[in-house]
Amino acid sequence: MRDKCGVVGVRFDAEKNRDAAALYIYYALQALQHRGQESAGIAVTNGSCLLSDKGMGLVSDYFSRERLQKLAGYAGIGHVRYSTTGGSRPENSQPYTVTYKGGTIAIAHNGNLVNYRELKKELEAEGRVFNSDSDTEVIAQMLARELIRNDIVEAVKEAMKRLVGSYSLVILIGDKVIGVRDPLGFKPLCIGRVDGGYVLASESAAIDTLNGELVRDVAPGEMVVLGDKIESYRLFRCKNHAHCMFEYVYFARPDSIIDGRLVYKVRHKIGETLARECPTEADIVSPVPDSGITSAIGYSNGSSIPYAEALIKNRYVNRTFIMPVQELRETAVRLKLNTVRSNIEGKRVILIDDSIVRGTTSRRIVDLLRRGGAREIHVRIGSPPIISPCYLGIDMATREELIAAHKSVKGVEFLIGATSLYYISLDGLVDAIGMPKEDLCMGCLTGVYPIEIPGEKCEDKQMKLNHFVSE
Amino acid sequence: MRDKCGVVGVRFDAEKNRDAAALYIYYALQALQHRGQESAGIAVTNGSCLLSDKGMGLVSDYFSRERLQKLAGYAGIGHVRYSTTGGSRPENSQPYTVTYKGGTIAIAHNGNLVNYRELKKELEAEGRVFNSDSDTEVIAQMLARELIRNDIVEAVKEAMKRLVGSYSLVILIGDKVIGVRDPLGFKPLCIGRVDGGYVLASESAAIDTLNGELVRDVAPGEMVVLGDKIESYRLFRCKNHAHCMFEYVYFARPDSIIDGRLVYKVRHKIGETLARECPTEADIVSPVPDSGITSAIGYSNGSSIPYAEALIKNRYVNRTFIMPVQELRETAVRLKLNTVRSNIEGKRVILIDDSIVRGTTSRRIVDLLRRGGAREIHVRIGSPPIISPCYLGIDMATREELIAAHKSVKGVEFLIGATSLYYISLDGLVDAIGMPKEDLCMGCLTGVYPIEIPGEKCEDKQMKLNHFVSE
Amino acid sequence: MRDKCGVVGVRFDAEKNRDAAALYIYYALQALQHRGQESAGIAVTNGSCLLSDKGMGLVSDYFSRERLQKLAGYAGIGHVRYSTTGGSRPENSQPYTVTYKGGTIAIAHNGNLVNYRELKKELEAEGRVFNSDSDTEVIAQMLARELIRNDIVEAVKEAMKRLVGSYSLVILIGDKVIGVRDPLGFKPLCIGRVDGGYVLASESAAIDTLNGELVRDVAPGEMVVLGDKIESYRLFRCKNHAHCMFEYVYFARPDSIIDGRLVYKVRHKIGETLARECPTEADIVSPVPDSGITSAIGYSNGSSIPYAEALIKNRYVNRTFIMPVQELRETAVRLKLNTVRSNIEGKRVILIDDSIVRGTTSRRIVDLLRRGGAREIHVRIGSPPIISPCYLGIDMATREELIAAHKSVKGVEFLIGATSLYYISLDGLVDAIGMPKEDLCMGCLTGVYPIEIPGEKCEDKQMKLNHFVSE
Amino acid sequence: MRDKCGVVGVRFDAEKNRDAAALYIYYALQALQHRGQESAGIAVTNGSCLLSDKGMGLVSDYFSRERLQKLAGYAGIGHVRYSTTGGSRPENSQPYTVTYKGGTIAIAHNGNLVNYRELKKELEAEGRVFNSDSDTEVIAQMLARELIRNDIVEAVKEAMKRLVGSYSLVILIGDKVIGVRDPLGFKPLCIGRVDGGYVLASESAAIDTLNGELVRDVAPGEMVVLGDKIESYRLFRCKNHAHCMFEYVYFARPDSIIDGRLVYKVRHKIGETLARECPTEADIVSPVPDSGITSAIGYSNGSSIPYAEALIKNRYVNRTFIMPVQELRETAVRLKLNTVRSNIEGKRVILIDDSIVRGTTSRRIVDLLRRGGAREIHVRIGSPPIISPCYLGIDMATREELIAAHKSVKGVEFLIGATSLYYISLDGLVDAIGMPKEDLCMGCLTGVYPIEIPGEKCEDKQMKLNHFVSE
Repeated sequence: MRDKCGVVGVRFDAEKNRDAAALYIYYALQALQHRGQESAGIAVTNGSCLLSDKGMGLVSDYFSRERLQKLAGYAGIGHVRYSTTGGSRPENSQPYTVTYKGGTIAIAHNGNLVNYRELKKELEAEGRVFNSDSDTEVIAQMLARELIRNDIVEAVKEAMKRLVGSYSLVILIGDKVIGVRDPLGFKPLCIGRVDGGYVLASESAAIDTLNGELVRDVAPGEMVVLGDKIESYRLFRCKNHAHCMFEYVYFARPDSIIDGRLVYKVRHKIGETLARECPTEADIVSPVPDSGITSAIGYSNGSSIPYAEALIKNRYVNRTFIMPVQELRETAVRLKLNTVRSNIEGKRVILIDDSIVRGTTSRRIVDLLRRGGAREIHVRIGSPPIISPCYLGIDMATREELIAAHKSVKGVEFLIGATSLYYISLDGLVDAIGMPKEDLCMGCLTGVYPIEIPGEKCEDKQMKLNHFVSE
Repeated sequence: MRDKCGVVGVRFDAEKNRDAAALYIYYALQALQHRGQESAGIAVTNGSCLLSDKGMGLVSDYFSRERLQKLAGYAGIGHVRYSTTGGSRPENSQPYTVTYKGGTIAIAHNGNLVNYRELKKELEAEGRVFNSDSDTEVIAQMLARELIRNDIVEAVKEAMKRLVGSYSLVILIGDKVIGVRDPLGFKPLCIGRVDGGYVLASESAAIDTLNGELVRDVAPGEMVVLGDKIESYRLFRCKNHAHCMFEYVYFARPDSIIDGRLVYKVRHKIGETLARECPTEADIVSPVPDSGITSAIGYSNGSSIPYAEALIKNRYVNRTFIMPVQELRETAVRLKLNTVRSNIEGKRVILIDDSIVRGTTSRRIVDLLRRGGAREIHVRIGSPPIISPCYLGIDMATREELIAAHKSVKGVEFLIGATSLYYISLDGLVDAIGMPKEDLCMGCLTGVYPIEIPGEKCEDKQMKLNHFVSE
Repeated sequence: MRDKCGVVGVRFDAEKNRDAAALYIYYALQALQHRGQESAGIAVTNGSCLLSDKGMGLVSDYFSRERLQKLAGYAGIGHVRYSTTGGSRPENSQPYTVTYKGGTIAIAHNGNLVNYRELKKELEAEGRVFNSDSDTEVIAQMLARELIRNDIVEAVKEAMKRLVGSYSLVILIGDKVIGVRDPLGFKPLCIGRVDGGYVLASESAAIDTLNGELVRDVAPGEMVVLGDKIESYRLFRCKNHAHCMFEYVYFARPDSIIDGRLVYKVRHKIGETLARECPTEADIVSPVPDSGITSAIGYSNGSSIPYAEALIKNRYVNRTFIMPVQELRETAVRLKLNTVRSNIEGKRVILIDDSIVRGTTSRRIVDLLRRGGAREIHVRIGSPPIISPCYLGIDMATREELIAAHKSVKGVEFLIGATSLYYISLDGLVDAIGMPKEDLCMGCLTGVYPIEIPGEKCEDKQMKLNHFVSE
Repeated sequence: MRDKCGVVGVRFDAEKNRDAAALYIYYALQALQHRGQESAGIAVTNGSCLLSDKGMGLVSDYFSRERLQKLAGYAGIGHVRYSTTGGSRPENSQPYTVTYKGGTIAIAHNGNLVNYRELKKELEAEGRVFNSDSDTEVIAQMLARELIRNDIVEAVKEAMKRLVGSYSLVILIGDKVIGVRDPLGFKPLCIGRVDGGYVLASESAAIDTLNGELVRDVAPGEMVVLGDKIESYRLFRCKNHAHCMFEYVYFARPDSIIDGRLVYKVRHKIGETLARECPTEADIVSPVPDSGITSAIGYSNGSSIPYAEALIKNRYVNRTFIMPVQELRETAVRLKLNTVRSNIEGKRVILIDDSIVRGTTSRRIVDLLRRGGAREIHVRIGSPPIISPCYLGIDMATREELIAAHKSVKGVEFLIGATSLYYISLDGLVDAIGMPKEDLCMGCLTGVYPIEIPGEKCEDKQMKLNHFVSE
């Protein structure tokens, strides 16, 4: 499934914990709710049959006690889906389940296949039919095709050979819970241990919620099979990886550890780096809540400028409708954010945000601070300018909509009305994340992508994709 | 209506803005959503008839575009209701509307009448009947009784003479929007100006959301009538007031100004005061989110101990159910809060919270930090020990449940497992709020109440209640 | 409450059957569902408190097992409400409950108070307030007023002195279940015995459903109190009554016995009478289903013309929407009714219907038969022409809409396109019902009403209303 | 899809009526609502894309004006599904839609494939995957497989060669609406003409509702393609057919014409035949409503015993729950049926029902009449004893549950408590239907099936199935 999503897998010893998989998945999905609020789903097995339930809305809204109790099993997977701008349809809920000659397959997917239309055509040419327009169904069909002639490991390997794009998958085949991460490791996936079993999750915070222990990340190109112990198969090995830097900057929870790096620490260091790269005199440093909070704390620590809340977020406003009453035109932003006047009146404010996409929201926030009496508003951004679209699963915007694709930093500064604007440097960001530049996907920042995208530049990193070495 | 609630009133010039009252109320109620998530209601008038709609849930969930569009009028009131532990029934939604000889009355109430059973008996003795068990219906009936023989101002005054307790009321009589605050000023209520009209709201943040301007607080004992201008009637005047100190400590939004004090500033000063009153060596200061955040920032500023987030709050978990699986027993707290390990491992942590009621949550949070590796956990509380129940509208707990009613500070410290525990001093809190001790209600902290409560001690302050001076 | 409605009361011996009242009411209301499908409600008492639940929709849709189980009590009342053309609002659901000095009152009402605005003004003048616009609230308030100074019997009598109009009431005061019927006996109400208790119901079919036994009708002007036995108070006695003839013709179930007459028998005789009064040669006699069925059987028996179904009713079509597609204009009637071609093609058809109100439906049905090939269509109506509106609780139409108020029988015949049209004679109908003409309300047929209606003629019957004799 | 269902197809000239297909389907499905109340679905095409919507509940409950308006197209199909005892799941709603190499296919199915597990295995062996457990998905996959190498007509023919069982299909491929009926013609399907287009429907009553004209039945083994005209392909031709006799006895609407026979006429003749085959003296003849009504009229006409309603059906009771209160044990039947006492007291009653499956309901109804005072109760059944299960799509019961599979007529008579019991003779039924015995499926009556069922006897009729002649 495209876009930011969350996946979970749970496998208990069938003797010890016959029924609890769904409950653990339920809690883990709530811990991953920030990765997707559109729909939620759980599929479990009791060893003889697959039980599945999914629906629109938050995990805790959709899954009642009754629904959960019907999902008795010792192994299972779960999914939360992000609401994209386009169609939010019940059919797109996951896990996606199919039956095939050998039994049942359920798949939960975080990522985006770049070549899914090509693969779909190939499968259709064999006479296969499709029920949805999702890339996850394509993966399911490819897996089913391979599973007829291969064992599970071979089948996954054969399918992976053909998949181009980002995918962190949690798969339930029979009563095996399988975790797969694409060879470049775009999207996170980690393994945890809980009492009596193992867990897979998009983020380690979900394992903490289950009172479990983070074992390690699933490696790029690795397939793990949860059973009484964890079996590991390093199916593909690239010289370098392509971890999405946006997980650290914006998506993941600050309390999650992703590919060995605590997100909180990265964001804190982003703040420190911004303070160091562009020293600025000011009275307070303040975040755009919530994503800018940790970096603003880091900036304050790095600069000794006091941390203060210039903006208060209304946590109850999700959906609302704005009617075209002249005086209420700016209501949308004021419903979500309000200024703390005494913190900004006559003050020089350093405002920390994670990124600028279209620039509209930034302009409105700067305007809000300006009306609140701020003397100077210095906007500092925790990521370099976004100049190119994401093809690997983030529904950010088209190139036309990306303000930094068309305007210089000075141009953006003018447009959003800031006293000054500074984006963290690419090296600064890489340094804050703490892994080699070569192991990050920064296509949206550089326009050079780790895999071939028609019409876009491509680094030679992914060329090694096919020189895999199976363990 | 008992408990924390939010009220709104809007009055436009009928010539200029015939239909927009409900839309403004809708946005203002969303700004007050933190004061009550159980139910929401709006009543408006178009000059000839009263239109009313109310239902369970969040403002933005219940009020669809269709519902709002049916509420065309130029004057109206709104209410959000807090979910109490007991019965959450549709019938208790507000505004409460009645017809009487002279027309219609709609009332939205924040507060709690202490003598409402006595008043109800008196009204029943006259043969009156009641449809609900709410104190708001009692107020409505008393008003209706007086309105038959008096003009509106006299009627409100006569009714207020009999009301004992806390009440901030917004009333719609005909097309007049009236604001009333009890003579001791327990609950907040303020006046704002918007383009083409006036607004009443529990908190000034609601006025900000409407792009309006805070005019002033409604004074204790004052009645204001919104029309083409604001008419004011100082019906009762006490030597001292009894503002609820918990609005500053916990209830209100930090960006609201209540009785002239910005809540953010009070909370920040509470943090500074805690740092000064009880200096403690530590590596970080961290809040229990969200209510402890501003005080923790203040503590950091006051102590130069770095501010850091030891706990991350999952903002998507509202309702969830916890099943009795042994290993998941502590799931409830872990679903809401997770530790940021690197911030606490081996660290001495100062943890800021607003208050301790039963002590259970504090114990769980301390335990969470302890397991996360914190070396020392110094708990600092932004309010003095709560030793006595609230009779004025806060559904906190019975005296039996209040841990500080039975245990010394040392006893509570032991029970919650903290390395040390310190509550702000009463004088420290009063100083942080910045108004004379005599003007605050601190019954729950001292056991001495500003009005007579059977079986409780009473300060002589409220004795002046009857020596009112009408303007 | 205005219009066709159904009421139920159940009283068990508290020792023997503490909890089952709601369940019996639930089944009885389903038996009365034809009298109202808009909303349903139940109020019961367990001896110490009143429990009440009501909502929109069918009895079996609204009342789940969970809802019923919460209504544990040994005495209670129930109501189903008919959907009027105007506002179908949750607030209008019954039973209507109030508390007053002496306790609680719940009322379920079938009928229509003619003087309710006048009574409401009088009550408002005393300073009373109202929550709804219903005449049932007026009755509740009047009762509460009297109950303060009188015992129940006196209170009901005093209230009844003032009520003008039709009312069959079932009232729960404390744990007493009371049945009241207006002095003219417009609307039905009967008493039944079930194992361990007594029942009140609008129709005897509800008693059959409970496997109970019909004891007798409540007499006009009588009040009965269900307890360990049935207490009876003949509060008012008129020389004549005013039973609504439409209950026999259309409203009631054919298996109900109302005021001693089995509805099936009346309708059968109406058919026989039509055959006798207006002998017609034809090939088949057919009803407009469902209300014409029994009379058509009677016509067939009386005339020896074979009974056949010319029209089949689709029982699943309740609500539907008709879009203005030219070819589908007549869809509304065709969705509900379809012809059985072989029964009508080239045939002379006698079509039996209960009444003609606006004439539109009759015109469409005749047209349907005509297109189906019927050679002759002789329409026979089981009631005389309706020439005047009903003020006593039937939401039939205004005088302007009543076709027979403006057209002769020939004129109506022409308009609906029938080969011939014949209405039963007034005497024929009276004879079929089997009670003296003086004991029936036939205001809508004669324009002469049994009570004073401003602007309408009035028979001297009701003049005796005030010469009541209390037992 | 298994069991009694209803299917519809509509095709307009795209130039003349671009958007109305869904509206026509909506009305036609309501006319077929008696064939399935569990779920409803509509799929249409506007020439470029397929729009589909389906959900649980009645057609008029699920399809709001908004839902319908989104389904703008000039060709489409619809389905209503019957609620089987087992799982009523949203996933089983139809039309079932898939995409394949050549485009989209939507299928609505009435019937039951006997060999669908075998076909599914074969498809799975080719590596295909399945999303549901329905036989309709099997048909869709087989069609898609053939459509890759064949044109539509060839593809349907190739698929039909493999399908064993009952199937009346309405298929939307691209913008072609196709009707297919299995070579034995088990389930009905007919063609109609409406203004500007053509219609397919399970029953002709749906065509009447659309103000259309019945053209003819789709022949067994025929495929029709609706376009600007009707193309017909007689793909298979058997010497004999196997029309389900239960459509005439029970399922279909009496106003429908199925395979040239008006259902009303068949049922009327069943009644006449019962009167002739087993002459009985009695006072009245009465139906078990609704399915026995027409036969009871026929019996009355044939015997000159007066037709009367002994039982009144409550049309509002669909779902209800029965609690184990001793006195209410028989409530379920009494909620649905009540006796008209005067019609049965002391009377000899002939009671007409369509069939006896388990015998439980018959026993309860006879008991009801007995308690109502009937002197003699002569039960007459419009179908011969059911001694064997249905494998062709009727979810009647297992052989163990079928009372006539284990008991003689005398035995059943005793069990249900009737004075006498008579089933129509097989020849009598065949004669009433009016087609050769060889053209009817009477497997449930004889135990001899027209197709091979493992473990059951088989007539040689179906052997000709493969000697088809394509036109």
